[in-house]
Amino acid sequence: MFIMDEIRVIEIKKSIFADNDKDADALRQELKQKGVYLLNLMSAPGSGKTTTLIQTINRLKDKIRIAVMEADIDSDVDAVKIQEATGIPSIQLHTGGMCHLDAEMTRQGLDNIALGEADLVILENVGNLVCPAEFDTGAVRNAMILSVPEGDDKPLKYPLMFSVCDTVIVNKTDVLPYFDFDLEKCKAYVHMRNPRARVIPICAKTGEGVDVFADWLLQEVKQWKQS
Amino acid sequence: MFIMDEIRVIEIKKSIFADNDKDADALRQELKQKGVYLLNLMSAPGSGKTTTLIQTINRLKDKIRIAVMEADIDSDVDAVKIQEATGIPSIQLHTGGMCHLDAEMTRQGLDNIALGEADLVILENVGNLVCPAEFDTGAVRNAMILSVPEGDDKPLKYPLMFSVCDTVIVNKTDVLPYFDFDLEKCKAYVHMRNPRARVIPICAKTGEGVDVFADWLLQEVKQWKQS
Repeated sequence: MFIMDEIRVIEIKKSIFADNDKDADALRQELKQKGVYLLNLMSAPGSGKTTTLIQTINRLKDKIRIAVMEADIDSDVDAVKIQEATGIPSIQLHTGGMCHLDAEMTRQGLDNIALGEADLVILENVGNLVCPAEFDTGAVRNAMILSVPEGDDKPLKYPLMFSVCDTVIVNKTDVLPYFDFDLEKCKAYVHMRNPRARVIPICAKTGEGVDVFADWLLQEVKQWKQS
Repeated sequence: MFIMDEIRVIEIKKSIFADNDKDADALRQELKQKGVYLLNLMSAPGSGKTTTLIQTINRLKDKIRIAVMEADIDSDVDAVKIQEATGIPSIQLHTGGMCHLDAEMTRQGLDNIALGEADLVILENVGNLVCPAEFDTGAVRNAMILSVPEGDDKPLKYPLMFSVCDTVIVNKTDVLPYFDFDLEKCKAYVHMRNPRARVIPICAKTGEGVDVFADWLLQEVKQWKQS
């Protein structure tokens, strides 16, 4: 494990590759050969991606080697938070106004991570329920977070996002009493978009339910490295 | 005032105009001649745009004639809600997967509204803090909603959205006790991006603070029609 002293900020350049799907497949192959599992975590702004990651990483960091790439239009607040709260290497990717990352942009980020020292790299994508869903980043899996205050109808409005995600974390369950959010209805809407998606309710603030997500992710990483 | 029996869903086509800024200026001129004020309301998914609109419209509908265009990737839940809760004409725009509306796409929506019978048209843009900020829709003003659960750091992460908005509504103030959200810090961040932006705290669920926004909007519409 290595700790970096300060946050590296990488200015991502626009991709020149025409065929992103092909490029994403190639990246996945490279990661497979290196034994690195890449998770692409997406959500709307403010759903609690960073807090969820901190809770997850603190449950897994003694079992596997983890690195994080935080993608944002601007600022490095998330990468700083992750590194301070978990001690694992975290870099900040600036998209220069772009609303998503594709495979080549993800690769630019990975070039700044010591992949030989990582089993799991988590990409925290730009907070956006539309565009990131359209681009395969080369990740092994896509996961997304829907937070209770956003409402249970989001799978109706953002169909592609929910159809490309294998795992939907429902965060901020502690405020369920204060919002009109029906968890069963939400699950039904998610499964309309992706019948195989697993829905995991958590409260990242208190840590409730995070074990379920962390256990799933640990099994995923082990299987990826072994198979 | 007229009430439509069912929600019209308009499938928006991709624009063919190269110069959106020019087209947006032209649209604003046309609206000016017709005495119609267009407000572009943006936010992240689930920040409470529709509930805020219902509260606002119910305060203004006896004073001015209002119509609403709801833009979403899919579904018509918002247009149905608006029409049921306020009785004003509401149409649903489907963007066909596109993450934003530009001026020509907005015009396609306006073509389905009886502009001679409207003083104010509100465009509820696609829930997204990135892309909609990049396109002038032809609106007289841009407003946006930031909800408390999203966090006070959003102006740091989505600079363009906050710089193009004259009015920032901070919604869901009823849950301030349950979230780490510092209103003063938020205001300071908003003003870093746009020193002239007015920040209006509201709770759309209870209606608290909505009068301030409704009064501002009423004055805006009156001034636009008179000047």
